Amino acid sequence: MCPSMFITFEGPEGAGKTTLIRALENRLRDEFERVVLVTREPGEGHFGRQIREILLQQEEVTDRAELFLFLADRAHHVETVIKPSLARGEIVLCDRYVDSTVVYQGHARGMDIGFLRNMNAFATDKLRPEITFLLDIDPEIGLVRQVDRDRLGRMPLEFHQRVRRGFLREADLDPERFIILDAERPAPGVEEQAWMFLAERLRS
Amino acid sequence: MCPSMFITFEGPEGAGKTTLIRALENRLRDEFERVVLVTREPGEGHFGRQIREILLQQEEVTDRAELFLFLADRAHHVETVIKPSLARGEIVLCDRYVDSTVVYQGHARGMDIGFLRNMNAFATDKLRPEITFLLDIDPEIGLVRQVDRDRLGRMPLEFHQRVRRGFLREADLDPERFIILDAERPAPGVEEQAWMFLAERLRS
Repeated sequence: MCPSMFITFEGPEGAGKTTLIRALENRLRDEFERVVLVTREPGEGHFGRQIREILLQQEEVTDRAELFLFLADRAHHVETVIKPSLARGEIVLCDRYVDSTVVYQGHARGMDIGFLRNMNAFATDKLRPEITFLLDIDPEIGLVRQVDRDRLGRMPLEFHQRVRRGFLREADLDPERFIILDAERPAPGVEEQAWMFLAERLRS
Repeated sequence: MCPSMFITFEGPEGAGKTTLIRALENRLRDEFERVVLVTREPGEGHFGRQIREILLQQEEVTDRAELFLFLADRAHHVETVIKPSLARGEIVLCDRYVDSTVVYQGHARGMDIGFLRNMNAFATDKLRPEITFLLDIDPEIGLVRQVDRDRLGRMPLEFHQRVRRGFLREADLDPERFIILDAERPAPGVEEQAWMFLAERLRS
């Protein structure tokens, strides 16, 4: 059995995470014949969809309530989706994970970052990704690309700039795990950079 | 304006919390002409009802996910319901609050109690009740009374015994706040004991 691998994708909406994940999924299947699970947070499965509905539809979700909803979704997702898939020796590609909470709630909204890390360690039972691809993009470009503007998409530009700096700061703190991709380039270039790194890692 | 007061009611299902709350609500209005807000956790308002639905219908909610759902509901409830009511000088009667989480998730299910207290302090922005009425009852009696058996009601007797001991332990740790009521007596006796204490406190 091939070794399982847990890979996350971070970055703002509009950076191209979905396109990249789909491309890597196909290549992992075609070129390495691996079983790949593609998933995302928040909102996989019945439980996740219920949470996602509350998060996206409710205009007046308080910051603290929102944080706990993300954590509830994450705890459920890790336990019932990610861990079983890894236990089967699969490769898990997850759109957003702990870094998103640390960046959006912490760096961008000012919640205590140490506290956020502790709560996430509890929610995930300390499961950490082996690789995190950070799709870095100037918010002014990312926001134009983003078609489906949800609650986050309507935040002011300054918020999105704090998000970008937050992700880069997290990548600085954990350079072994983070691969920063310049997502302002066309998708094929981004995909090629990510694939070269990933294929190399799988061969080693 | 009269001083606001935040009062919580704790104890297992079937102990008579709802009946007691209704009786105290009426007497506070009739005898003290106070504005009273009756509420409960989890599940007040649109947000709370959505959370309550997930909690009660889903069979396979993991322990960690359940905890975070309770905390999300509590954070939202404190911010949008309890605090505004207290700010208007009202008396808030709340069916379950932080002690329920500490007892059910901590004492009964074995989660770290210090961690639960920290997360609750964050969720509530440190809002604590002035009085907590604990309706204490032998689980074998309480479970027979309980008509509407939800997920918790189907737990084994040993679980309910841990819940009872947990509540009594919490009351031991904070005797200034907790009033223990013997809920095995008929409802009028329980009500009278609670009312005597409450009326005295309001007059002082």
